[in-house]
Amino acid sequence: MKSLVILKIGGNVINNSRVLKATMKNFASWHGNRILVHGGGNIASKIMVDLGIVPQMVEGRRITDRETLNVVTMVYGGLINKNIVALLQSFSCNAIGMTGADANIIPAKKRPIKEVDYGFVGDVKPENIPTDTIVSFLNAGLVPVIAPITHNCKGALLNTNADTIASSMAIALAKKFRVKLIFCFEKKGVLSNPDDENSVIESLNEVTYWKYKTEGIITTGMIPKLDNAFAALRSGVSELYICNPNGLKTDCREGTLITLNSHDE
Amino acid sequence: MKSLVILKIGGNVINNSRVLKATMKNFASWHGNRILVHGGGNIASKIMVDLGIVPQMVEGRRITDRETLNVVTMVYGGLINKNIVALLQSFSCNAIGMTGADANIIPAKKRPIKEVDYGFVGDVKPENIPTDTIVSFLNAGLVPVIAPITHNCKGALLNTNADTIASSMAIALAKKFRVKLIFCFEKKGVLSNPDDENSVIESLNEVTYWKYKTEGIITTGMIPKLDNAFAALRSGVSELYICNPNGLKTDCREGTLITLNSHDE
Repeated sequence: MKSLVILKIGGNVINNSRVLKATMKNFASWHGNRILVHGGGNIASKIMVDLGIVPQMVEGRRITDRETLNVVTMVYGGLINKNIVALLQSFSCNAIGMTGADANIIPAKKRPIKEVDYGFVGDVKPENIPTDTIVSFLNAGLVPVIAPITHNCKGALLNTNADTIASSMAIALAKKFRVKLIFCFEKKGVLSNPDDENSVIESLNEVTYWKYKTEGIITTGMIPKLDNAFAALRSGVSELYICNPNGLKTDCREGTLITLNSHDE
Repeated sequence: MKSLVILKIGGNVINNSRVLKATMKNFASWHGNRILVHGGGNIASKIMVDLGIVPQMVEGRRITDRETLNVVTMVYGGLINKNIVALLQSFSCNAIGMTGADANIIPAKKRPIKEVDYGFVGDVKPENIPTDTIVSFLNAGLVPVIAPITHNCKGALLNTNADTIASSMAIALAKKFRVKLIFCFEKKGVLSNPDDENSVIESLNEVTYWKYKTEGIITTGMIPKLDNAFAALRSGVSELYICNPNGLKTDCREGTLITLNSHDE
């Protein structure tokens, strides 16, 4: 089985152009099948403020109304995605920027209205992702760069969490590749003390994750990311790391390795 | 030799969402190899005003400074491109949105600074366009949707005229396909009286074009478009039409047919 690395870079990597450039230079130097998934960064919020769009929040969560959707489509699908593609091309990496609408690589469903109407937000199921086009692109040496925008196949674009896109794509492609999934963000890895950058937990399995959670050592911010990570491993993803851009340089050895159980370590 | 249709839609088609939807529904119903190239429309100008960006003009021509480049990248490469892709996908047309940076389909050179510094504007030469990726996409049944943004292969995105992209792509692909190029804009075709929509010139060749120009019947606005058109025909493009969205429905019979010489008619 061929290998595939899916790297997800978060907002803090994107916000700093020096860090982004160094990270993309590193990513471009890797060999073999690769996909990059990028988050949004703070540029969309800044442009919304500049355009006088007032963020709609319900219970602390952002609502994607029509105007917000237009801004994230512009910023994620246009500004960030195309600048990353141009940067990778300058490092001789044959990047191709895509949203989930392009070549229908990520069909999604608009989140149903229950207690909260999240607006134009798309939920993705890995089993609904048709992988043929992405596989043919990888076989042709192309490097897909995916923005966190999907579509409902009925003409509407949808805002989708970038971590979800990375893990859903990893699960869908695990049927055809040995997938290594890396979440790259601002911290060195999962920290046992959020205030101490040097408290990286070297590896986590479901048992130790449960223990850290129960003890209150791993808290709110990391829990969705880790739940996502374990779900990906349970669905066939082979290797999973959480690290920062420096960690990428050491093949993730400086980050946190996530495994299902202790036998995998 | 296989056939390929390249349709370029201008700003006025994009600005009216009802016209855009009908035009895309029509385009989606066509069969065979197709590429769509879209212009910018007035959304970029509107967003620049909203963001407080003052247009930089020199001798009546817009300069693409860094801020303007960011807006056109967002609007052309993100907002317009992705909405067109989602629309085509809803009509079961497997569209894939691209700029010239994506998969390096259109490398360009930043326009040299002479009397005027146009800023981040890219000039394209058909002979520098590598067509392998586009050909493989067409063979796979994908429909490229190209935004008027290119790159210099050194990390910079560049603003490029959409007519130029359409004709350069047509010329580059004329080596591999029998190419029909259609410029679709707000007028029914080339008019002998700009104020009379019914004065469409049915066909134009180099001799009649020269005659109409000399007589002052064809004036400034159309001249760059027509020079572009004749250049494309001289470089191997097989058929060329100028029409409006209604003209597309009649297989361009209602527009203006451009041919090199009268024998072609």
